[in-house]
Amino acid sequence: MLPKLILTDIDGVWTDCGMYYDEKGNELKKFNTYDSAGVLFCKLLKIPVGIITGENVKSVKRRAEKLKVDYLFLGVKDKMSVIKKLSKDLQIDLSEIAYVGDDINDYIVLQNVGLSAAPLSAPSYIKELVDWKLEKRGGEGVFREFVEKILLNNNIDVIELLKNNNLINKYKQ
Amino acid sequence: MLPKLILTDIDGVWTDCGMYYDEKGNELKKFNTYDSAGVLFCKLLKIPVGIITGENVKSVKRRAEKLKVDYLFLGVKDKMSVIKKLSKDLQIDLSEIAYVGDDINDYIVLQNVGLSAAPLSAPSYIKELVDWKLEKRGGEGVFREFVEKILLNNNIDVIELLKNNNLINKYKQ
Amino acid sequence: MLPKLILTDIDGVWTDCGMYYDEKGNELKKFNTYDSAGVLFCKLLKIPVGIITGENVKSVKRRAEKLKVDYLFLGVKDKMSVIKKLSKDLQIDLSEIAYVGDDINDYIVLQNVGLSAAPLSAPSYIKELVDWKLEKRGGEGVFREFVEKILLNNNIDVIELLKNNNLINKYKQ
Amino acid sequence: MLPKLILTDIDGVWTDCGMYYDEKGNELKKFNTYDSAGVLFCKLLKIPVGIITGENVKSVKRRAEKLKVDYLFLGVKDKMSVIKKLSKDLQIDLSEIAYVGDDINDYIVLQNVGLSAAPLSAPSYIKELVDWKLEKRGGEGVFREFVEKILLNNNIDVIELLKNNNLINKYKQ
Repeated sequence: MLPKLILTDIDGVWTDCGMYYDEKGNELKKFNTYDSAGVLFCKLLKIPVGIITGENVKSVKRRAEKLKVDYLFLGVKDKMSVIKKLSKDLQIDLSEIAYVGDDINDYIVLQNVGLSAAPLSAPSYIKELVDWKLEKRGGEGVFREFVEKILLNNNIDVIELLKNNNLINKYKQ
Repeated sequence: MLPKLILTDIDGVWTDCGMYYDEKGNELKKFNTYDSAGVLFCKLLKIPVGIITGENVKSVKRRAEKLKVDYLFLGVKDKMSVIKKLSKDLQIDLSEIAYVGDDINDYIVLQNVGLSAAPLSAPSYIKELVDWKLEKRGGEGVFREFVEKILLNNNIDVIELLKNNNLINKYKQ
Repeated sequence: MLPKLILTDIDGVWTDCGMYYDEKGNELKKFNTYDSAGVLFCKLLKIPVGIITGENVKSVKRRAEKLKVDYLFLGVKDKMSVIKKLSKDLQIDLSEIAYVGDDINDYIVLQNVGLSAAPLSAPSYIKELVDWKLEKRGGEGVFREFVEKILLNNNIDVIELLKNNNLINKYKQ
Repeated sequence: MLPKLILTDIDGVWTDCGMYYDEKGNELKKFNTYDSAGVLFCKLLKIPVGIITGENVKSVKRRAEKLKVDYLFLGVKDKMSVIKKLSKDLQIDLSEIAYVGDDINDYIVLQNVGLSAAPLSAPSYIKELVDWKLEKRGGEGVFREFVEKILLNNNIDVIELLKNNNLINKYKQ
């Protein structure tokens, strides 16, 4: 069964935990374009996607806007409260939510959603909590791996999904 | 036989899929200087090179200009249409085109050109389509590997090619 | 027994030794968010944390401020003198200090503190000096690994530590 | 016998070949702080160090100035000519020069100096030319590895070298 909502942490999941600081107060994060297809697949299946992160930086906002992520919560101290409120607003049970995270501020969430996952690079005391230990490390396309694994478990082929939505054109020479 | 045109995707091929976002709306891509020799070898053999990418950023334009890439298509939604038009303009058959790409927007192109390749880091459903699974991951010099493999298959030695063009000087002590 | 002070080098420990230079005089360092939990664990145990580095850049100052590191010494030429003075001021013996560093300017310090460690990526003539050769390479979360290993050796479970400080909320569905 | 001059390429040796392009015409290179000790060891032994690179960017100039590199040649098209002129000016024979480089524009130089080396990440047709195939990849501290290997071959211990120059202070508790 497909989740009704897919939520995701950012640092250590969409990134390799790297935070680039310069000499002028600027900061960079390195995202991975492979994750964009993960968001696209969710859109095609009408599964809303949400980002919940403890950090509060504009780079995440821009990335979320570019990929048209449905929900974005920045600077969150208590992720579980945000998720409980969101699930109430959307009338979705926690058991219908899938979540991927990698660290201590994801700890309670990972134990209370319907489907939980962590990247290979997460600390061992996080990985032992989750339903799925993913194969990729943070920043290698973990979110896409999570979405594709959900689709695979529901017998949805991503290429067929794209073809059915005319997103792979059908040209033959 | 040498291809008459070599086309290439950028993200995941010339890069490791990384997109660096800062706090001020700026964005960086990390290119690999090894790919520049790939373009040089094509120039020496008079094989035109083209970049076709879904992204539309100035960093790719600057990189293409620095390396004197012959064709540059940015912000492309339907790569196959662009390639069909280009092949018509150049009076080249699709079977005479070589293409290296790594993701779903390369899917149809990879099935319709004369020679297709993908980096080691591409999703498995892309790699199973292509003629050549390359040994390098995106950003490690994949384009150069592709060009050098084409030359090798045509019994062209890159060092001899450079010597014949006086690009390796012949100084002996 | 817990150390009374934990001191750390930056380049090669909190980073992978990378120094990013641009064309305008700016410079970046890549930190790892995993290290932030290392500082947090020390705070919960009331163990002060200090940074001592030979470099003098603002990025380290910002990182230290964000994580609320207790002591920060930038542009240090003679680390041992700084540490002797600090230990005198705090009335702490050198044997009660833990230190993680990776290179020649850490050489004497690593031989004179109570507990010394170096990342996997340090030169061999540094690693052979230290009490603990860590498993992570510089920039992969070495400082956190060092702190967690100290806690583990003192039978302190990080998850219990967080729970006891109400930093992992206790929601059950 | 120690070389009388050590020369080095930059891209692919001091870096991993990465060229970071932003949207505003800026460009970054990622250097590795481990290489700075390589330059230091040469200074202590009074062996001059020179950088010779085909690129012409300010980041290399800043890095060279920070490390007090003796000679810097930017934007070089014909490295062999530059090296011949320098060797004449310094009255050093080519056989007394050590050089580390990784690509086709280093090809002739690597064949004509007294001691040649290339990083693990260099193309195979470069590595088969050189006296020493190094263990590190470009950007991992290749220049330091080259210098330390030269010192080791001359029975010079880097820690003793530093101690003899009072660069490792002798504090004992």
